Amino acid sequence: MKCNTCNEKAVIQMRQHKLALCSEHFLEWLPAQTQRFIEKYKMFGPGDRILVAVSGGKDSLSLWDILCRLGYQADGLYICLGIDEEIAYSAESQRLTEQFASERGLQLKIVDVREEYGETIPGMASRTERGKHKPCAVCGLTKRHIMNRVAREEGYDVLVTGHNLDDEAAVLLGNTLNWIPGYLARQWPVLEANRPGLVRKAKPLCRIYEREMAAYALLRGIEYIYEECPFSKGSKSIYYKEMLNKLEHDRPGAKLSFYLGFLQAKEKGIFTPQADPDIEFLHACPICGQPTSSPGECAFCKMISKFN
Amino acid sequence: MKCNTCNEKAVIQMRQHKLALCSEHFLEWLPAQTQRFIEKYKMFGPGDRILVAVSGGKDSLSLWDILCRLGYQADGLYICLGIDEEIAYSAESQRLTEQFASERGLQLKIVDVREEYGETIPGMASRTERGKHKPCAVCGLTKRHIMNRVAREEGYDVLVTGHNLDDEAAVLLGNTLNWIPGYLARQWPVLEANRPGLVRKAKPLCRIYEREMAAYALLRGIEYIYEECPFSKGSKSIYYKEMLNKLEHDRPGAKLSFYLGFLQAKEKGIFTPQADPDIEFLHACPICGQPTSSPGECAFCKMISKFN
Repeated sequence: MKCNTCNEKAVIQMRQHKLALCSEHFLEWLPAQTQRFIEKYKMFGPGDRILVAVSGGKDSLSLWDILCRLGYQADGLYICLGIDEEIAYSAESQRLTEQFASERGLQLKIVDVREEYGETIPGMASRTERGKHKPCAVCGLTKRHIMNRVAREEGYDVLVTGHNLDDEAAVLLGNTLNWIPGYLARQWPVLEANRPGLVRKAKPLCRIYEREMAAYALLRGIEYIYEECPFSKGSKSIYYKEMLNKLEHDRPGAKLSFYLGFLQAKEKGIFTPQADPDIEFLHACPICGQPTSSPGECAFCKMISKFN
Repeated sequence: MKCNTCNEKAVIQMRQHKLALCSEHFLEWLPAQTQRFIEKYKMFGPGDRILVAVSGGKDSLSLWDILCRLGYQADGLYICLGIDEEIAYSAESQRLTEQFASERGLQLKIVDVREEYGETIPGMASRTERGKHKPCAVCGLTKRHIMNRVAREEGYDVLVTGHNLDDEAAVLLGNTLNWIPGYLARQWPVLEANRPGLVRKAKPLCRIYEREMAAYALLRGIEYIYEECPFSKGSKSIYYKEMLNKLEHDRPGAKLSFYLGFLQAKEKGIFTPQADPDIEFLHACPICGQPTSSPGECAFCKMISKFN
């Protein structure tokens, strides 16, 4: 297998793109693709201040690396969740994130959930109805709140996350199998800050396969945490990813064409505006100012008020 | 496992409905469910003349049985496709269909594709570009044409087919994985005759699982052809059915909630009218009068003209 660009030995074959590349040309190709999607979906420009949500995993660290190489002003935000029971998951991912930032002289903001709100994520989960069975809902709620808060407080123009194609396709499959009109109407590579208190969000890797991201981190020599969050075992998103991996195995490109077909159908206006009923009824939380779907305190502030 | 109605021994457990039934009550329940969907989706009424497309399989013969028991005026239409190469598929399904009709004194109209158009389906396929690899596209085109033609010529109010939930969910999964707006906008339990030359179509079994239909045919003692069409091996629809069966196995009810969620999202108006671009541009074929998406002869008449 030879590189389609230089004819040297290829290190990766991407059947879905009918493309094989050597290390050098793959490390050029992936940032160029990312730049293409940043422009195509009008995510942000060279003058924008960008906050990258970094978890210590391959996707977010590679994304931060790529954005810096592309010349963007990108700072990092690491949220310490305090998940250190079975394995030192949070401690190790924080160490790797800090190492990544300091080696490159990058700005990293760290928010420790326990210091800030009095409880780790597993601690919050054990004390709330929402987290009774699994802390994932509590964790998602908390991360969304903190990411949005920090980006607003520090005046960033956009918050970016490392969601890759596999993540986005799995979310889409879940939203489709359950036909949730609001979620389908909202899913998009960039989410506008179209409500007071909401920061602009973008997912520059949304069209890049997970295995391409893993290859990028490996070839670029980025040290990242290999372990998945111990609470992700048996999650719906892993189940949907497995379904899509089987489909991709049987029909190379199926995962990409599922997600791209959806984006194209949306661009052609497949969904009615009333498919997203929630958007009209967002209120500002009287405590934090972030949008919430029902009047009064938002779900995050309600939860936190119980701990203090 | 006991019948939820009479406490006798149950013969079928339907986890998705949290319901177990004995033979007697299952044979009552399934037609009652069918009647409920006929009314809910306004498919047809007691005064309507119904043409049932019967293939000799469990779904269409059971549907014919159910419609007669429910008191509808339902005649049968059998289309002989001439698929008798590896196994006597067409010959045997015709024999079973004729036996079913004569035992019950029902009216059965038979159209033999070769007698009428000069070629069997495999013969047509081998002589056309459309059928080069597989005769399925030619077969679908031909069946749709004949069903519509006979229903119009003989003045039926509605044409009904035996598509069950597994069929509809597999079609929906295919349309979703490929995001075909027009197909998504059109899929529904009943298709109105909203264009000249088009007959009203309905699928009364669209919410009944395939295994419920198999159980019905078995318990009712209906003799049907067990073999699948030899050309269906490796088809997309079988692939999608397997995906959904795996999902259903892991989460009982997932298949039904996928299809039902879609119907409900459509009822709430998730799709825009322009999602179905073809519907505005249908023309009448100058030869057969049936609608076609491009001006001039329809795809079926074009194909047939080559054989004569």
